[in-house]
Formats: sequence, C-alpha cells, structure tokens
Amino acid sequence: MMRTTVQVDRYTAQIDELLHAVSAITKRQGRELMAEFDVTPPQCEALLVLQEFGGLAMGELCQKVGSACSTATDLIDRMERNGYVERVRDTNDRRVIRLRITPKGEEVVAKVQQSSRNHLAEHLKAMDLSDKERLIQSLEQLHDLLKRAI
Amino acid sequence: MMRTTVQVDRYTAQIDELLHAVSAITKRQGRELMAEFDVTPPQCEALLVLQEFGGLAMGELCQKVGSACSTATDLIDRMERNGYVERVRDTNDRRVIRLRITPKGEEVVAKVQQSSRNHLAEHLKAMDLSDKERLIQSLEQLHDLLKRAI
Repeated sequence: MMRTTVQVDRYTAQIDELLHAVSAITKRQGRELMAEFDVTPPQCEALLVLQEFGGLAMGELCQKVGSACSTATDLIDRMERNGYVERVRDTNDRRVIRLRITPKGEEVVAKVQQSSRNHLAEHLKAMDLSDKERLIQSLEQLHDLLKRAI
Repeated sequence: MMRTTVQVDRYTAQIDELLHAVSAITKRQGRELMAEFDVTPPQCEALLVLQEFGGLAMGELCQKVGSACSTATDLIDRMERNGYVERVRDTNDRRVIRLRITPKGEEVVAKVQQSSRNHLAEHLKAMDLSDKERLIQSLEQLHDLLKRAI
C-alpha cells in the first residue's frame, strides 16, 4: 500500500467529498430498488461477480467480493435455495465445487440493472445533453486515473 | 417507489456504467485503506453515521445503515470492545440505550478519511486544474439531481 506525501489540495478534498456523497445516495437508492426484486446488495454483488467470472470456487468468490468466507457461504446457500446460483463439480477436478449464476439469477441481475437505469434516467431528465457529455468525459477521465495502480 | 416509462438514452446507460465502475474501484481501494487501520467498511459506515447523528438508538442506526439489527448489534459489540463506540443511557428515558462514537472512534474515522484523500490526490496528480474544476461541476450537478426525490 502506498505511503504518500502528496499535497491534498482543496479540489481533491472536494472531489473526495462529492464522490462519497454521490455513492452514498446511489447505494441507498440501489438498496431500495433491489428490495423490490427480493435481493440484497451483497447478493447482487456476488451475482455480478459470478456473471463476469463464471465458475469461481468459493474461496475465489470471497476474495473478489472482499467478505469472510463464512458470510459468503451463507449468502450463496440462500441464493442457491432461491435458484439464483448453482454449485457444480469441476469437470477436471471432481473435488472442486464451482459456483455458477443460473438463468433465473441472470434475470434478476438484468431487472435490477434495468430498474437502476430507469431510475437514473428519471434523475437526469433535467440535465442538458452538453452537461451529460461533460459528466461522461469527466467520469471517464476519473475512471482511467483510478484504475492505475499507485 | 417510482414506476417510470422514461426512455433510457445511451448517455444515461454510459453514466450508469461509469458510476458503477468508479464506485467499484473506490470501494475496493477504501477496503484496502481501512484494513490498514483495522476497521471494516460496515464498521466505518456505522462510525460515520454516529458521527453525523450522535446518540442514535440501535433501531435508528440499523435503519440508517440499512442492515438487519442482528448484524448491526454484532458490529457495535465488536466496536465497543475496540473502544470506538459506547452505549449510554438516555438521560430522559433510562430504558433507552443510545450509541455514541468515542474520541478513539473519531480518530479512526479521521485517519481513514485522511488516507483516502491522500490516495485520491495521488491518483489525481496527473489531472489538470481545469479538468478538476469540470469534474467538480459535473459531480455537483449530478449530486443535486440525485438528491431530488422522484
């Protein structure tokens, strides 16, 4: 982990605050949307990871979502009962169990994403096209910079 | 909860994706920073809420952080043992227990925030002043729009 001596200017402090404020709102609104589809934020996060990296072992999933394996095991058990994920034996090594998102799980993820987009579109209705373009450019630049390891 | 028929244009879809991508990175980096100060993201979130709304009852805290009360109770128990929060009897109604952040808890929050800012400053070093200003304007506008109930 970086040990930095870089000066924090007032712009950075302001950007940091705004990012936290925006993410607090989207997090709360996301939780409300997910509740409509009977899924929790940690469940949805795990489903997204399984959608991106199909066939993870439990240990790999825990690492990717950054939660304790006991917590992730409970979460997967619940989602297996709901039919959102399935446990499948590895075809090469039958001792290994791999997790997969099911079509029903994919459907829930798609519904949450669609609902999240509709919700955001409703908020952004009042924004000019040029302001949307500026926001996209700024977020793309921020995203590129944040992705760099330091 | 809103039932919307608004059209999701490609700008909105792009903004939605970028917001998720940025928040996934800041979330992962935040978790790494917090681990250095021996605190987890849910603990830090609860401390921030207690810092903002001092003296909440457990039920009020659960509602604000959006987690089950059994989970929040475990979390507060652990933080009380670490000396980050304390349980205090309500002076008006002695049956009610209120939660407060301690000076040690405030110190942990301040350290995490400082570290998060240093980290962001390091990422933003390569960004022009005018780009920072544009990002701030865009995020402020987005924040204002997201805050509106729809």
